[in-house]
Order: sequence, then structure tokens, then C-alpha cells
Amino acid sequence: MDAAEFRRRGKEMVDFVADYQENIEHRRVYPDVEPGYLRSMIPSEAPLEPESYEDVLRDVDRVIMPGVTHWLSPHFYAYYANSTSFPSILADLLSSGIGTIGFTWAANPACSELETVMLDWLGKMLQLPEDFLSETQGQGGGVIQGTASEATLMALLSARLKTVKCVQESDPQRSEADIISKLIAYTSEEAHSSVEKASIIGGVVIRMVPTDEHFSVRAETLEKMVAEDKATGYIPFFFCATLGTTPCCAFDKIDELGPICNAENIWMHIDAAYAGCAFICPEFRPLLNGVEVSFYFFLPLHLFSTSLSPHLSSDSQHWGIPMARRFRSLKLWFVFRMYGLRGLQAFIRKHVELAKTFENLVRGDNNFEICAEVVMGLVCFRLKGSDELNKALLKQITRTGKIYLVPCKLRGRFVLRFVVCGRTTELRHIQEAWKHITELSSELLQNLFDHEGKEN
Amino acid sequence: MDAAEFRRRGKEMVDFVADYQENIEHRRVYPDVEPGYLRSMIPSEAPLEPESYEDVLRDVDRVIMPGVTHWLSPHFYAYYANSTSFPSILADLLSSGIGTIGFTWAANPACSELETVMLDWLGKMLQLPEDFLSETQGQGGGVIQGTASEATLMALLSARLKTVKCVQESDPQRSEADIISKLIAYTSEEAHSSVEKASIIGGVVIRMVPTDEHFSVRAETLEKMVAEDKATGYIPFFFCATLGTTPCCAFDKIDELGPICNAENIWMHIDAAYAGCAFICPEFRPLLNGVEVSFYFFLPLHLFSTSLSPHLSSDSQHWGIPMARRFRSLKLWFVFRMYGLRGLQAFIRKHVELAKTFENLVRGDNNFEICAEVVMGLVCFRLKGSDELNKALLKQITRTGKIYLVPCKLRGRFVLRFVVCGRTTELRHIQEAWKHITELSSELLQNLFDHEGKEN
Repeated sequence: MDAAEFRRRGKEMVDFVADYQENIEHRRVYPDVEPGYLRSMIPSEAPLEPESYEDVLRDVDRVIMPGVTHWLSPHFYAYYANSTSFPSILADLLSSGIGTIGFTWAANPACSELETVMLDWLGKMLQLPEDFLSETQGQGGGVIQGTASEATLMALLSARLKTVKCVQESDPQRSEADIISKLIAYTSEEAHSSVEKASIIGGVVIRMVPTDEHFSVRAETLEKMVAEDKATGYIPFFFCATLGTTPCCAFDKIDELGPICNAENIWMHIDAAYAGCAFICPEFRPLLNGVEVSFYFFLPLHLFSTSLSPHLSSDSQHWGIPMARRFRSLKLWFVFRMYGLRGLQAFIRKHVELAKTFENLVRGDNNFEICAEVVMGLVCFRLKGSDELNKALLKQITRTGKIYLVPCKLRGRFVLRFVVCGRTTELRHIQEAWKHITELSSELLQNLFDHEGKEN
Repeated sequence: MDAAEFRRRGKEMVDFVADYQENIEHRRVYPDVEPGYLRSMIPSEAPLEPESYEDVLRDVDRVIMPGVTHWLSPHFYAYYANSTSFPSILADLLSSGIGTIGFTWAANPACSELETVMLDWLGKMLQLPEDFLSETQGQGGGVIQGTASEATLMALLSARLKTVKCVQESDPQRSEADIISKLIAYTSEEAHSSVEKASIIGGVVIRMVPTDEHFSVRAETLEKMVAEDKATGYIPFFFCATLGTTPCCAFDKIDELGPICNAENIWMHIDAAYAGCAFICPEFRPLLNGVEVSFYFFLPLHLFSTSLSPHLSSDSQHWGIPMARRFRSLKLWFVFRMYGLRGLQAFIRKHVELAKTFENLVRGDNNFEICAEVVMGLVCFRLKGSDELNKALLKQITRTGKIYLVPCKLRGRFVLRFVVCGRTTELRHIQEAWKHITELSSELLQNLFDHEGKEN
């Protein structure tokens, strides 16, 4: 394919994407396919000779689209949905077109430098203390990690390195392996599984901290566990706080946890993979209070030394697992500028408001209950009754495919999660979704009633 | 930005990318900017109100482009350059447009399934043994790792887990921490720094294996080191072979190393980040002989268990560090089909042929020497003479900015690397590059001669 054909095909693809997103709400949000559906629809090996582009694009419709879970659909209320915007897609296209790999400053100065400045922009939007910024020429500065899993892993590894060094300063004979075997990390029992995964990779013990009635980790609980573990010879070194837990968007009390971590030389990392962006709104910023106490914005620390890049200490290859990276800061730059801070705040507030609307609908129906405080875009709810009843409801929802939710467990109970995150989600979608849920639940309850009636 | 504006802006961006790539060879390949150039060119914080798209795009030209190292330029001969193709950019655009995050089968069945089948396609193109494929319903199957660094880390962690389990089977009292402290990994002294980085993350000792006169690891050297380490109580558990080393594209002798690893219960991982794709050509496939002995295609092993995805064991979240993943297999699908196996083979052969041409130009000039066997697209060469002379030459090349190379060290000597990887690199570019290098070196040698003449 030469540049001339790319111009033509690229413009068609832009229309394809625009058509897809404009009509996405008419698609079944959760696909009706069985595991293994795809293999039989395409050849079992690559073609020897080139195929036509038309054939490839036809197969996107025939093979791919029927098996896609449509994350960008306004009917998608699962996980913590993402919110791709058009400016972000344009920036991504530009990044693909430049095709650069920025792992040192020299490998792409613009890529390294824009990322540093964009993370300063973000730091200021979040009202982080000056120490967290790179422009102050201090220790601060941010870097984009590919995923929250990687950010947590990098923080844990940094903390491990720092603690080993620190212990060896006072006890030079002690081996690294011996110290690591005594390290202990902490995180909420409600934390994401990636925190435990990071501890497994790092080869350290982790303990899950019980939460209070709001599913938040409190200072006294952590304090007690740290004291216990120190008494048995462990070295507490890392606490991963969560602001916005996966199950119910709970917030650990970092303003009271930070001082303990500071006093105990424990590295506090904050996982705010979902709720973090909401802190750009002044009304949510208090949830981040305490950030100034004990936590690094990202990772102003070089874990690794290599011989490849002598000339600049800020090379991103030392700040994460992968060396190679796309020109991802372009997306931040495009989105920050095309929305503006006010636009981004409005975007978040709309989701929160729609979630409140949904919460009110749930509260207005006596068959249902709300299972956790609704702070941002997540509503945890369930039918009053057994787990089996709620599992049956979710099964019907998924089978019907009109909307898509996933469940969670809260205090052992099966709970439905309804997340408002979509760029195109409007009031009418929320109302439709609730209508759909209540229709399905009425059927279920009616069947149950009939069934019980027969049994009696 | 609504869909209508996206259609317009997206098409402009397609033209922007096409223009960029069509005219890229007229740009200075290595930018003429100083560290920190960008910060003063843009505001120090995000705008409060949205800006216009025109302003953003104008700044791409004003701020970004002058600081870009143009990896896609035919004058780019550094690192192991990448070869983005137009079909790959189209697939990337589609992936951005679908905006899916595939971390479980349910999160996007098409994403999970296409990836599995594409890796089978690749496995067949590489003529891997059947055990490595997923279609045979056995233990095999591949997964896309974001970078070679991640692939190596995952292999090392998998090997660590396997070995700990294995040791504990015969010695149940022994703690995991104690076993890990005795584990020892091996890799070539010529291996990429990411292998050492993986060992640091995994908390295990690593030893660098000396290479033979072709910069290859040989069986007897590894065998000797393993015996030594076992004698002192270490547990050899992991060997990372390299097929196509970073400095000079050397190949470890895996056909003789595999049997040793097998006999010693050592997990052999192959890092073929650059040379791997060439194994789709029958004439290069013998370099991969031995793959059947002891190595896993990728990672058919679940390192981690989480509670999120009970229904399918092939969820990609268990196969790597990050959970979230883009729909990356679309790129493989588009590229495999639009090129066909023969097209991809021709692509690789062209690079190898151009590298041979460059090698012959170097060999024809008595001032220069070739420093390692030229097997694929990399030519390692230097001016006969001191390291300082060669450093001076590279400095002139970089300063002039017409072509871009990076150096390496071979047996302590400073060597220039010339890598042919570009999609648009043609014979005339190679000839121009050589002309440019010899002009600069003649100046240098003349200056040196004048200088020495004056001194005498």
C-alpha cells in the first residue's frame, strides 16, 4: 500500500470509525458469541500472496464486529468503562503516523519532553504539591505508565529497592535476599488484584487490610497490623492505598494513613486508576488530601542502570518495565487542549450526576437496595433477596445484551455494579437502562412468586 | 468535537500523516534541539477553556516536529529501526476507534480470539513445532507482549515460579524466599540490558556468559558455569538466549544450548526481538533450529490467579504485567494479509540485501573495517584507528543530521552500527549514506594528517 492508497483507505477508515461510533447504540452491547467462535471463520494460516484491502475490511464486519464487546456504547456500564474521545483518536493516529519509539531523550526529544510537561500540567490540574512537578527542577516529575498494574508494580519495586538500601546502611552484612524475605506490603482487602500480583512479582509478602463500614482502610487498623508484623521480625515497607476501589469506589483515608506510613518509613503509593481524574474538580479534590504527606507522584527514581543512554538522566526507559514507548503524551496534549480544564470537569460532573440519577431511581424502588455510598460514577445495587436472585437477574441482563454490567462482591454478597463513564451516555440511556432492569426483575420476581405459590 | 468534525479532522490527519511520510526524507533525521527545548514553547499549564483544533495542529508543526527523531526516515539507521506500514496504521486507527480494552474473554471476545489465532499464524510462519500452537488444543499458544522487555520478564517470572514449585516438591520445608535467594539466571554478555533488568525485578542473581569469536554463547561455556554454580549451592533455573544481539546481531547456538538447559531443568527463553521476524524466510530459519528442545513460544502458564474471570482460562490478563490491552492483533491481521507471507519475506530480504551492499562498500574502502559478520540488516563497522577517531566521526554524523546511527562496543572497541530497517530505504539511500560517511571521514583523516604533519 503506497501513500496514495493510504490517503484513500485512511479516509474511509475515519468514516468507518465515525459511523461505528455514531451508530453504536443500535448494536447489541455484549456480543452473542460462544468461546472459540472466531477460529472457524478465518483461514488457519496467513495467505501466501497479498489480499485485497476490501477483503480485509469486509472481514472486520463479518468476523470482528459480531464478537466485540462495545466499550464505547452508551449501554456499556461494566468495569470502569473508558471514555475515548475524538481528539484522543486523532492524537493516536498522529502517533502511529510518526511511528517513533521514545526510550531515551535522543530517540525522540519531543516525545520525552512533551510527556514531562504534560505530567506537570496534570499535576497542576490535580493541585499536587510543587515537589511533585518537574518544572521546579527538584526530584519531582511524572511519567505515563501503560496501565495501573505497571504503576503499582514500579512503586512496589522502587520501595523494595529503597528499603533494602536503607536496611543495609545500618546492617551491611545482611543480604538483599534475606531482607526481601522479611519485607511486608499492605493494601486494602478491597484493592485491585494487580496489587497482589505486584507483590508476587516482587517476591514479597502482602497482607490485606480490613476496611471500615465504608469499605475504607483506616489508620488504626493499619497501625495495628504494622506493629504486629514488626514484633514478629517483618519489615513493613509498602502500602498501596486505593482512592476509588474497583468493587464500590471506596476511598482509603490517606490523610490519616500518610502520617503512619511516614513515621514507619513505609512507601505509600496511591492507586486512583478510576477516581484519579475526578480530583481535577475542586469538589472531589479533598479526597486526595494527604497526598502531600508520603507519596510520590509517579516514580522519580531510577531503578535500573543501563549503558545505553549516558547523556540524560530522565530517560523514560528507567521509569518502567518496557523500554519502548509510543508517543502517548500527544493524547494528553490534544485532549487537555480540546476540552480545557472546564470541559474535562464538566465531563466528569455529568457522569457523577447521571450516577446520582440512577441511584435515585434505585432508591425509589422498594425491590432494590443501594449497597455502597455513591460518590462518583459507580452505583452498587441489588435486588433485596438472595445472591441467587441477583445472579439470575444479571444473567438475564447479559443474555438479553441490551446493556452490560458486571458484578462484585461486597462483604460476601453478590452485588451489581452500574458505572457511568461513556462519552455519549445521556439521561435517556440511564432511564432506558433502569426500565430494562426493572422489567427483567419484575419477570424474575413474578416467576419466583408463581413458583413459590405452586410450592405452597 | 462531534463525529462530523472528527470526519473532517480525521481525513486531514490522514493527509498530514501521508504528507509527513512522503516528504520525510527531506527532513533532518536527527533533530537540532537542546535538552529542555520544548518547555518554553508551550504554556506551563493546561488551558481553562477549549482551544481550537487549528491551534493544536499548528503547534504540532511548531513544537513537536522540530524535536522529533524521524524513525521512519530512510536516513534513519540507528538502534533496530521499526518499519511501520500503512496497513498497520489503518489497523491502529481501527483499534483506537473501537476503543476496547481486552483483559478477559468477555471484555472483548474478538480481541482475545483474534490474538490467539494470529499467534498461531505467526507460529506457522516461523515453522514452530505443533506443541507451540493453540489450535492443537494442547498447552501451546502465543500472546502479544507489549515489548521484548516484558516478554523476558514474564519468562523469567514463570521460570522462577516453576523452579520454586519443583524444589518444594522434593523439599517441602524450604521457604520460597530461601529458594529464590539461591536461583541463578544466565544470559550472554552481549544480551540486551532488559535481561539484567528482569533479573533485578525478579530478585535473582544473573551471570553474563562469555561469547565465542562470533559473539555467540556456546554450550561448553554455559555448561561449565552451571556446574560451578551448582557446586556452590546455586540453583540454575533460567537462560535467556539471544538470536540477533543488539550490538552486532550475533546468534547464540541454541541447538547445542537447548539440550543442556533440558538436562539441567533450566528454562530457555529466546529473545529474538529484532531477528525473529527473519525466521519466516527459509534461508534464515536454520538459525532457529533447536527451538523445539526447551523453550516456550510465549507463556502457556498462568502466573496469577484473580477472582475476576472465572469462565475462561485463556484470559490475557494472566499472561503479562498489564491487564488492559488494546486490540493489537488487528495490526498483525492487516499486515499479514496485505503483505502475504511472500511480501513479508521480500521485505526482509530487501533489507538484508541492502545491508550486504553497504558491507561491500565498507569492505571496498581501505580506511574502514567490518567488525562482525553481517547476517541480516545490521553492519558493524569502524574507521581503522582509535576509538577517538571513530567517536569524532559519529559526532560529525550526528551533528550534520543527514543520517542517524548509534554506536556499540564490541570487545571494548567503539564501533558504528548501520541498520537497514526502513520501509522506504532504497539503494540510493545506502549509496548516499556511504558517500556522506566517507566525505566526513576524509575530512577527519585529512585534519588528523595535517595536525600530525604540523606536530612533526
